[in-house]
Amino acid sequence: MIHPTERTLVGELPPAVGQAVTVCGWVQTSRLQSTMQFVLVRDHTGTVQLTYRRDGGELEAVLDGLSTETAVRVTGTVVANPVVKLGGLELVPQSVEVLARAAGPLPVDEQSGIEHRLDWRFLDIRRRPAAQLLFAVQTTLEAGMREYAHAQGATEMHTPKLMGTASESGAEVFKLGYFGGEAYLAQSPQFYKQMAIAAGIDRVFEIGPVFRAEPSFTARHATEFTGVDVELAWTRDAEEVQAFEEAMIAHALALVAERHGAAIRAEFGVEVVVPQLPFPRITMAEAQELLRAHGWDRGGEKADLDPEGERLLCALLAERTGHEFVFVTHYPSSIRPFYHARPAGQPDLTLSFDLLWKGLEVTTGAQREHRHEVLAAQAAEKGLALEPLADYLRSFQYGCPPHGGFGMGLARMLMVLLGLGSIREAVFLFRGPNRLTP
Amino acid sequence: MIHPTERTLVGELPPAVGQAVTVCGWVQTSRLQSTMQFVLVRDHTGTVQLTYRRDGGELEAVLDGLSTETAVRVTGTVVANPVVKLGGLELVPQSVEVLARAAGPLPVDEQSGIEHRLDWRFLDIRRRPAAQLLFAVQTTLEAGMREYAHAQGATEMHTPKLMGTASESGAEVFKLGYFGGEAYLAQSPQFYKQMAIAAGIDRVFEIGPVFRAEPSFTARHATEFTGVDVELAWTRDAEEVQAFEEAMIAHALALVAERHGAAIRAEFGVEVVVPQLPFPRITMAEAQELLRAHGWDRGGEKADLDPEGERLLCALLAERTGHEFVFVTHYPSSIRPFYHARPAGQPDLTLSFDLLWKGLEVTTGAQREHRHEVLAAQAAEKGLALEPLADYLRSFQYGCPPHGGFGMGLARMLMVLLGLGSIREAVFLFRGPNRLTP
Repeated sequence: MIHPTERTLVGELPPAVGQAVTVCGWVQTSRLQSTMQFVLVRDHTGTVQLTYRRDGGELEAVLDGLSTETAVRVTGTVVANPVVKLGGLELVPQSVEVLARAAGPLPVDEQSGIEHRLDWRFLDIRRRPAAQLLFAVQTTLEAGMREYAHAQGATEMHTPKLMGTASESGAEVFKLGYFGGEAYLAQSPQFYKQMAIAAGIDRVFEIGPVFRAEPSFTARHATEFTGVDVELAWTRDAEEVQAFEEAMIAHALALVAERHGAAIRAEFGVEVVVPQLPFPRITMAEAQELLRAHGWDRGGEKADLDPEGERLLCALLAERTGHEFVFVTHYPSSIRPFYHARPAGQPDLTLSFDLLWKGLEVTTGAQREHRHEVLAAQAAEKGLALEPLADYLRSFQYGCPPHGGFGMGLARMLMVLLGLGSIREAVFLFRGPNRLTP
Repeated sequence: MIHPTERTLVGELPPAVGQAVTVCGWVQTSRLQSTMQFVLVRDHTGTVQLTYRRDGGELEAVLDGLSTETAVRVTGTVVANPVVKLGGLELVPQSVEVLARAAGPLPVDEQSGIEHRLDWRFLDIRRRPAAQLLFAVQTTLEAGMREYAHAQGATEMHTPKLMGTASESGAEVFKLGYFGGEAYLAQSPQFYKQMAIAAGIDRVFEIGPVFRAEPSFTARHATEFTGVDVELAWTRDAEEVQAFEEAMIAHALALVAERHGAAIRAEFGVEVVVPQLPFPRITMAEAQELLRAHGWDRGGEKADLDPEGERLLCALLAERTGHEFVFVTHYPSSIRPFYHARPAGQPDLTLSFDLLWKGLEVTTGAQREHRHEVLAAQAAEKGLALEPLADYLRSFQYGCPPHGGFGMGLARMLMVLLGLGSIREAVFLFRGPNRLTP
């Protein structure tokens, strides 16, 4: 790895004992004694102790004046010292350059509540190794998913977030002024990734933002989040989509386990389990029967699973199969969008699925209805106006292949993977009905 | 590669001679003679001829009824036939399943103008191998840039597109309703990627949408485009940022040349040149002097390069250096944003650069001003209100390291790489002041 800054990372110090190096980092803590000064400096790879014997000089004064979180560039000699806890080495500084002094006191600490931490998210993340790890894990998770998708011939697409009509569902969509007219923010790449299939892109892969104008204040909803979307041409049914998804997840989790398994155990107390293939499957009808036999929805009124049902179902199936994941398939068409395909002769069902992981829904997918006339009829049956759907529908008039796909919430995946209590902890800068800052 | 659809790709047919296969694709053309039927079927990997001897049966009728662009699934036997131009083989069908019939006539053809093609973009892309290739090249270009960035320790970040204030520049920003208040769409991840640096993320990498409410109708502007953003902590000056960028681009172009060089030559008539490192550099002052010596800006009034100046500069430097790229550095502070760092003692200049490629600007980058009080002073000097910048500015109060970075327009890169006349051809679904559909 090149270090154009000519710095040595703290993690690279052990083999540099006896050498002069330059380290860049933040002041973690200082212990200033009458004859000795000890200053811990942290970068993203670790922490090193600066050790300086007072000599009444300029450097002594600089070290005395360092406030916590000040950014410094230190040049010095790496010295082996078995007494030092941080790797049995210390750095004896020849020069300490103050790059940016931190004001004091710091506005956030270990006792701060979540909203206050979000106000000062940059300090919250910088000072907590677990938060740093989260973004490393995110990087690997995405890299693993992409690696699988690319190997399967997927093409990276960027579909528009600005739409001319609020097509998929008018209720939860953000509206904006657009050169004297109006535009809407895409709630998902759904219509556009299907249009990419109609455009002959064989397998579509997109990671990008999606926007939901939902006034939800739960621990698992956000008004903007990162979606991972896949769409596959020429599929015969949802099963092929599920097979792609489970293999993609297993591949990505194997990479996460390999690169970060030990760190995740240490920071989050969670074991990364690389899932066996295939994931368990259960139809919605079977799932409801099983749940009702265990006391869920005593009134027998729920068509869909609620969060309690999702948790219980995962618990029951984990007991039975030992598996953290479960595909719930064949949702009733009454609670699925018009574009989900339905099994021949069974208009009340869809060829669709959700993927649950440790009790939380992380994906919705389906075989799509690709026949223009059937699709238009299903939209009309749902009471949708066809005019705002015109662009979408006409992409089915000229030989749109059968296809299926899924959408996954990246933060929800991270939340479940790392055992986080809230999606607010699983993203860099959370966006909710009450939060647009920082 | 797994084919969960159990199809054989057209590109995989040569080794399958003598075997029964299933091919999925679109009807390209039909030649229906009195005794023989010839139907060309195309998938994303190639085109194969179906050859059928009329027998008065059901299959003959199906083949007679196939309209152009109908999606079909064909099962048949691969037969070697040296007379057939398409790879010396043909497919003798046993069954042809019509998956989605295309209406006729097709609304778009080779003679259609660009706007009409954009109206029917899905058909335009599906039917033109060059357009298909573009997205394969996009995938590889991104993969190459990511591969380099990851190897250099970059973390994949997703910064919010919804902002509480129109901070960077109020004029060109989209405004939307947000739960009774207002929000703005990010014009770039600029402030947030810098906040990620303040959060201790050592090297930030993001590919995502950016939004510009600019009423520009040029061939190189869009209201929404995909930005590639990088930000690097602990840099000493813009030169380190440039070194990162040129290496990233060279790495990605090497991958593109390797995977698609021949196809790009065939479809676009362009040679992919893997650039030598380092790229040429020229200061803005030198560039203007050179340009004026060659007749540019006779009035001597222009502080910035205009498109004509960019083209001429690249031409002059290509003559001198043989290189397609050039970094123009040290822009005057009068035409750069407040957050660009300035050289010590030279407040009229910035430590910034643009990257030009074959006459077009593809990147802007800079060392950032990381000292809170200097940054605030530069913002005030530019006449900016500090209140909307409050969140941004306070991320500099607690030890923000020096850093620098750049932003690149993905479509502009593709436009230059493939020699396209308009950015409209370089994206899936273009967005401009007059275009929000399809």
